[in-house]
Amino acid sequence: MTKAISPLLPIVYSKEVAAAKVRGAPIVALESTIITHGMPFPGNLEMARSVEAIIREKGAVPATIAVIDGILHIGLEDTQIATLAQMTGVMKLSRADIAFALAERRSGATTVAATMIAASRAGISVFATGGIGGVHRGAEESLDISADLEELARTPVIVVSAGPKAILDIPKTLEFLETRGVPVVTYDSEEFPAFWSRDSGLRSPLSLSSPAAIANFQRMREQLGIEGGMLIANPVPEEHEIPREEMEIYIGRALASAEREEVTGKDVTPFLLDNIFHLTAGRSLKTNIALVENNARLAAEIAVAMND
Amino acid sequence: MTKAISPLLPIVYSKEVAAAKVRGAPIVALESTIITHGMPFPGNLEMARSVEAIIREKGAVPATIAVIDGILHIGLEDTQIATLAQMTGVMKLSRADIAFALAERRSGATTVAATMIAASRAGISVFATGGIGGVHRGAEESLDISADLEELARTPVIVVSAGPKAILDIPKTLEFLETRGVPVVTYDSEEFPAFWSRDSGLRSPLSLSSPAAIANFQRMREQLGIEGGMLIANPVPEEHEIPREEMEIYIGRALASAEREEVTGKDVTPFLLDNIFHLTAGRSLKTNIALVENNARLAAEIAVAMND
Amino acid sequence: MTKAISPLLPIVYSKEVAAAKVRGAPIVALESTIITHGMPFPGNLEMARSVEAIIREKGAVPATIAVIDGILHIGLEDTQIATLAQMTGVMKLSRADIAFALAERRSGATTVAATMIAASRAGISVFATGGIGGVHRGAEESLDISADLEELARTPVIVVSAGPKAILDIPKTLEFLETRGVPVVTYDSEEFPAFWSRDSGLRSPLSLSSPAAIANFQRMREQLGIEGGMLIANPVPEEHEIPREEMEIYIGRALASAEREEVTGKDVTPFLLDNIFHLTAGRSLKTNIALVENNARLAAEIAVAMND
Ligand SMILES: [Mn+2]
Ligand SMILES: [Mn+2]
Ligand SMILES: [Mn+2]
Repeated sequence: MTKAISPLLPIVYSKEVAAAKVRGAPIVALESTIITHGMPFPGNLEMARSVEAIIREKGAVPATIAVIDGILHIGLEDTQIATLAQMTGVMKLSRADIAFALAERRSGATTVAATMIAASRAGISVFATGGIGGVHRGAEESLDISADLEELARTPVIVVSAGPKAILDIPKTLEFLETRGVPVVTYDSEEFPAFWSRDSGLRSPLSLSSPAAIANFQRMREQLGIEGGMLIANPVPEEHEIPREEMEIYIGRALASAEREEVTGKDVTPFLLDNIFHLTAGRSLKTNIALVENNARLAAEIAVAMND
Repeated sequence: MTKAISPLLPIVYSKEVAAAKVRGAPIVALESTIITHGMPFPGNLEMARSVEAIIREKGAVPATIAVIDGILHIGLEDTQIATLAQMTGVMKLSRADIAFALAERRSGATTVAATMIAASRAGISVFATGGIGGVHRGAEESLDISADLEELARTPVIVVSAGPKAILDIPKTLEFLETRGVPVVTYDSEEFPAFWSRDSGLRSPLSLSSPAAIANFQRMREQLGIEGGMLIANPVPEEHEIPREEMEIYIGRALASAEREEVTGKDVTPFLLDNIFHLTAGRSLKTNIALVENNARLAAEIAVAMND
Repeated sequence: MTKAISPLLPIVYSKEVAAAKVRGAPIVALESTIITHGMPFPGNLEMARSVEAIIREKGAVPATIAVIDGILHIGLEDTQIATLAQMTGVMKLSRADIAFALAERRSGATTVAATMIAASRAGISVFATGGIGGVHRGAEESLDISADLEELARTPVIVVSAGPKAILDIPKTLEFLETRGVPVVTYDSEEFPAFWSRDSGLRSPLSLSSPAAIANFQRMREQLGIEGGMLIANPVPEEHEIPREEMEIYIGRALASAEREEVTGKDVTPFLLDNIFHLTAGRSLKTNIALVENNARLAAEIAVAMND
C-alpha cells in the first residue's frame, strides 16, 4: 500500500534506514513528540537513545521521524536526536499540519498520527510509541478526540503502545475504535492495559501471544483488502507498573487540580502529566520510560516477524 | 471496485456461488450472525433455508457468508448451514476482527459490516439482512455506535434491511448516516420503518419504488466516483408488522428491565431482544423472520436489476 | 487524484469552463445552494453574477455547479443562473443524494459537500463559498453534524469560506475537523473568523498570508499522499463585518425564538438566518454578500497560484 515517493517531497532517510531499505531489513518507526513534548532534557535524550539501541539489539533498524527545517526525516542521526531533544517551540504535528511544516520550512515533532503517515509513506509498517491519544474525558461535551484514532482507521501501520494514556476516557476510546473497525490487540493478556498500569478493568477486544501471530493478522487484513492499522496494547512489565487502584487516585487528584485552576483545551494533557509526575514523586516518568522500551522491544520483534 | 483476490486469502465459494460467478448470474449476500446469534435452533435453520429458497425463486443465487475454521466461505452448502445453526461459542465478526478469525483459524459469524467486506471482496454488490446496527440509545454518553454504519460509508454494497433494530436510537442513526453521506432509501414508502413496525414516525431521507431505480441509483453513484454502499429500508409487510405504538410499549418495558437488572455493554442487545420476545409472546420473532424473507425478495430483485 | 469521467455520467460543462479545461486555465467552483436556498430573488441572482465577475477579473473561470433535470452542470450559462435563481422546490444535494438527483432526473442545488464532489470529479481544486456547515449547537445530544465536514476529510478541494456559519457550534466544529485531520487555515490573521464577524474568540489552528503559500501547502499534502481538502477561513473585510459582540446578541435572540416556536431539525438553520436578517435590519445579508465576494477573490487568486 506504499505510494511512490514524489520527487518533489522533501524527504531524507538516515544512513542506517536508507541501508535497511536497500537490503530489505526490518524497520521500526518512532515518534518524536515524546522527545520534544513528552519528557524533560536530558531524560528524553537518554530514552530516545536507549529505545533505538533496543530496536537494534532485536535485529531491526530504528527510524525516528521528525520534520527539521521543512525536511521530513525518516531516521535521525544521533546528533540530530541530541539537537531535537533540546529544541524549544517546535510544532507538534498531526495529520492536519505535517505538510504545513514541510511547505513552510518549519520544524516539528510528529505525533502518533503524523508518524503513521510518514512511516507508511516510507514503507515502514511497525511503529513503537508510549501511549496513543484517544477520546478525552468530557468529550461527550467537547468532542475532543485525538486524530490518532482516525489515523489507525486509515493508515496501514501496526502501532505498539501501552494503551491510551490513562488520563483519557479509556472505555470511550475503545468504543470509538470499535465503531471505526480498528483491531485492538493486547499482547499476551486478556486485560486491556492503562498505560502506567497493567490493567484498566476492561477486557481487551482481542489478544495474541506472539509477534508472529500479530504479523500474520496484519497480513491477513491486507489480503482481505482492509485498510488501516491496528493498535497493539503491550502491558508495562510488572516490576515497573503503578497499579490501577493507585493511579486512579493520582489521576483523580490531577483532574481536580486542572478543574480548580481552570486549565482547558490543549493545556490539559501536559498539565495532568506534570501533576501526576509530582504526585508520584517521579515514578510516573520511570514507568513511562520502561513502557516505551518494552514497546520498542515488541515492535522490533513484530517487524522481524513481518519480514519472514 | 472489486479488488483482485489474493492467492493467500483463505476463501472458498459454494458450488452454487462459484457457478454463478462464472456465468455472471446475480448473487445476494447473506449474513450469518442472524443464524448463530439472532434466533434459536431450529427456527434459525428454517429461516436460513427459507431465505435462500426465496432468493433462488427470484432468479438470484444466495451466498451466506461465514468463517469456518479459518476459511472465509462465500456461500455455504446446506450441511454447513445446518452445522452453523447448531454451533455455540462462535465469534461475532465485524471489520476489526474478521481477518483475526481467518489468521487464527477460528470460526465466526459475520455481522453486517463483516458481510459487506466479504461480499465486496467477492464481487457481490447486494446483501439482504434483517436490521442493521446503529447508534445505541445513550450513545451521546457511551459513544456506542455500530461499525455497520461506518461500513456503509466505505464499502460499495447495497444493504437491504427493515431499518435499524428499533431498540436503537433511530433519529441519531439517521443523523450519523447523513453526516457520513450514506443514502437511506425507503422502498415504496415515504415513512422510514422501524424494524418490527412499518413506520418510525420519521420521514425517510429518500424513497424509491422499484428495484431498477435502486440499481440505477447505485450505478450513478459509482459513475460519480462516490465510495460506499447504501441502506435500503424495506418496511415489513402489513400483515406481519407490530404497530409502532405497541412496540414502543414493549421496548420501553425491556429498556426498564435492562436498567433494573444493570445489564450493560454487549449484553444489552440480546437481553432486550429476548425480553421483547417474551413480552410479545413470540410475535417479535415471527415478524423478524417475515421481514428477513421480505428483504431477501427485494434484494434478489435488485441483484437481478443490477445485472441488466 | 481526478478520476476519469465515465461516459455514462450525465455531465455538461459550460462553454467557458470547457474552454478553460482545454487551455489549462484556473477554474473556481461555486455552489448553488446559496442561490436557491441562501438568499431571496433577485438579490441571489445579483450576487451570483457579481461573484462570477470577480473571479473572471482575477484571471480565473467560474464554474457554478448544479443539477438541472438530471444533468450535472459544471459551469452554468447566464440564462441558466437566472432560471435557477427563480426556481422553487429544488433539492438541496449533499454526498448522500447528488447521484439520486442524477439517476431520478431531478433538479437540485449543491451544498458544500456535493460541490466538492462534483468539482473534484471535474478536476477543479478550488471552491469559493460563504460559510460551510458544521457541528450544530446541541449536537452532543442530536448528533446533527454537517456532511460538509466529512467531505473536507475526503475530497481534495480547497474550500474558501468565512468560517462556519456562526449559528453553529464553532469550537466543536474545530474539534471535529482536528479529529478528522482537516487543515483549517485562516487567511492573513491568527484569529479564526465567525462568518459575519472577523473573529470568533478562537485562535486559528493555522494561518497563511498569501495565495501562493496556500497552493504550496495543498501541493505538499498531495505529495505526502494525504487525502482530502482544506478549509480556508477568510475573514470578512472590516468595513462589512458585524462585530462578534453584536452578533452574539442577535444569535442568542434567534436561538431563543427557535426554542420558543419549537423549530427543529432541518428548519432550524433557515429560521435562524431569517430571524437574524430581521434583527439586523438586513445588514446580515449585506455582510453575507460581501464575504462571498471576498472569498471569490481569494479563491481565484489561489486557483491562479495552483497553476504556477
Ligand atoms: Mn484534541
Ligand atoms: Mn458497540
Ligand atoms: Mn444535519
